[in-house]
Amino acid sequence: MPKDIPSNSVGLVSPQKASFDTPLDLVSGKTLPGFELVYETYGQLNPQKSNAVLICHALSGDHHAAGFHSMEDKKPGWWDSAIGPGKPIDTDHFFVVCLNNLGGCNGSTGPASINAATGDIWGPEFPFVTVKDWVHSQAMLADLLGVEQWAAVVGGSLGGMQALQWSIQLPHRLRNCIVVGSAPKLSAQNIAFNEVARQAIRTDPNFFDGRYKQQKAVPATGLKLARMLGHLTYLSDDAMKHKFGRQQRTSGYRFDYDVEFEVESYLRYQGEQFVHRFDANTYLLMTKALDYFDPASEHNDNLTEALSPAQCNFLVVSFTSDWRFSPERSKEIVKSLIEARKQVSYAEVEANHGHDAFLMPIPHYMQVFSAHMKQIIKELNHAS
Amino acid sequence: MPKDIPSNSVGLVSPQKASFDTPLDLVSGKTLPGFELVYETYGQLNPQKSNAVLICHALSGDHHAAGFHSMEDKKPGWWDSAIGPGKPIDTDHFFVVCLNNLGGCNGSTGPASINAATGDIWGPEFPFVTVKDWVHSQAMLADLLGVEQWAAVVGGSLGGMQALQWSIQLPHRLRNCIVVGSAPKLSAQNIAFNEVARQAIRTDPNFFDGRYKQQKAVPATGLKLARMLGHLTYLSDDAMKHKFGRQQRTSGYRFDYDVEFEVESYLRYQGEQFVHRFDANTYLLMTKALDYFDPASEHNDNLTEALSPAQCNFLVVSFTSDWRFSPERSKEIVKSLIEARKQVSYAEVEANHGHDAFLMPIPHYMQVFSAHMKQIIKELNHAS
Repeated sequence: MPKDIPSNSVGLVSPQKASFDTPLDLVSGKTLPGFELVYETYGQLNPQKSNAVLICHALSGDHHAAGFHSMEDKKPGWWDSAIGPGKPIDTDHFFVVCLNNLGGCNGSTGPASINAATGDIWGPEFPFVTVKDWVHSQAMLADLLGVEQWAAVVGGSLGGMQALQWSIQLPHRLRNCIVVGSAPKLSAQNIAFNEVARQAIRTDPNFFDGRYKQQKAVPATGLKLARMLGHLTYLSDDAMKHKFGRQQRTSGYRFDYDVEFEVESYLRYQGEQFVHRFDANTYLLMTKALDYFDPASEHNDNLTEALSPAQCNFLVVSFTSDWRFSPERSKEIVKSLIEARKQVSYAEVEANHGHDAFLMPIPHYMQVFSAHMKQIIKELNHAS
Repeated sequence: MPKDIPSNSVGLVSPQKASFDTPLDLVSGKTLPGFELVYETYGQLNPQKSNAVLICHALSGDHHAAGFHSMEDKKPGWWDSAIGPGKPIDTDHFFVVCLNNLGGCNGSTGPASINAATGDIWGPEFPFVTVKDWVHSQAMLADLLGVEQWAAVVGGSLGGMQALQWSIQLPHRLRNCIVVGSAPKLSAQNIAFNEVARQAIRTDPNFFDGRYKQQKAVPATGLKLARMLGHLTYLSDDAMKHKFGRQQRTSGYRFDYDVEFEVESYLRYQGEQFVHRFDANTYLLMTKALDYFDPASEHNDNLTEALSPAQCNFLVVSFTSDWRFSPERSKEIVKSLIEARKQVSYAEVEANHGHDAFLMPIPHYMQVFSAHMKQIIKELNHAS
């Protein structure tokens, strides 16, 4: 619980909900008759409606990116390090929007919602969603909020993929695209990790082919395993070494299967916590959206061609120790943007935190991020 | 099935069994009243008994390192690329011994064996075994075979840890130690991967706290997941890219959870095959033996001091794309050996196969390996 809300926090915030009755045609060929999106906003939309920034979340993220929901909240939103007064995404200047993506499990329509057509929980019948579908639904939210053009669309990891997709799919609707710790598509190794996580969930006897809610069950074992494995890939070998090394819980070896090394305890805890806050069907959907993202595939694997419609400025950031989406993957994006003659800045940040670095207030990262956002503020002030 | 046995194969081989009635005191404090070891030998022991080479296997290996068990055998032993006439471990010159380690599941006493004291399957009551215990039991086999001193003890991965432990524990009993793709101890990340694998097995409802055989059950789901995950860490990102890329089973996305990408199919297949040939309790024991190996820990984390008793020559080999046990881990061993003023050769082999490279006939690797073994042959001939 924050005794006092820090002065550079957006403070107490409340989620809002938007309902859409228009059917949404999805890439999979299915149509969602209508849907709800839960979102939060920080800062004020200016009269010109030119200062809106969209935050896209990653695999397990949600709409609560910054601030606190109550004075009892133990932790602020997931990207509080970057969003707030005086922070890179400065809420004294920007109107920030963050939503829970379609298919999510934190308030937006997803597998745990009721399917109006049947009166039953969607469960495994919830249609597959892709990054394209998310951009489409995010644009509908933008329409509702009166935002014709985002000052910036920003995201890390899977969120960065959404930002990139915005630049291709609706190029006239954003002036800046910020892609942090991301990739133009998953590698075979990335897909393989997702597949092991999916198998862990789907083979849990409490998964019931995705109908676990109807059975009043939770595939906790599978979801815990999936999260432990995911977490492993978010940290670098070096970060783990610094955080845990081979530190043991007790002196001497136990010679049993209880927690022996601190890293085991940490992973088990992370896995258990996740089960309380996340839905297994959503986890499956998100990993598939990751696997499917590959804008170049529609252009004979030519990423430059895929990016050619883009009209915005780009900032691409990567982290040296990120082995999930290594700097090489960011450089693929940068190389194609340059080839496509787009305006792009690139920073490779020295950080030993692995993929998780994108959530952390690393000085060099924050400086690069702030400098880019300040330039946008300058242009805003110039235009007004 | 080999139509004809290749001329550089050790040919048809048969496992043998050795029984030990002497109680074996284990590092865990437990005592094994007696045990059996299954092993294979290739080549002939010379009259001086000076040409014996011990092969130590890795996590999922066994005693069948080379040759074929029958003309119906589809594949030769697991290290057939390196063992045979004219191969690095040349059976025209060496008497090669490979055993299934204590705690294994391919014929040596392990969790699936009967505990004579109870008449029941050992299961989870089988005592923990460590690399030290393996060296101890391997030395008992050496005694039985009349091998006072090995010309070389050789191993890759966990096998390399055993070779290293031989040099420390019984320094007068080997003249050469060959450590391939190994490490002086697991990193936190290595332990974390093992822990996820263990959790996958132990939370499988068919695991029954390790008493699955008594229940006529197999924790197939957990063991399959463990193997999929293990396999992922044996391959490099690059190897997977070359082997599978983002190649799909069918054109266009399926939008379901069946196999979509070739890499998924491969991993599922590897996992399923493993279930037929491996025991879950053994898998758990082997991962714990890996976690526990840390010879420096008894010397205030000073590896140089730990290695100081060694009297043999060393060859250490690593592979550029091995991210499970990276070249840096091999270099830790080499650095300490040099500091301890031991004779050591080191080769970092350019290979994109990841950790699995240690099993492959990569020309540079085979050349380095052969050159070292030829030097041993020269010394053998000189001595005779």
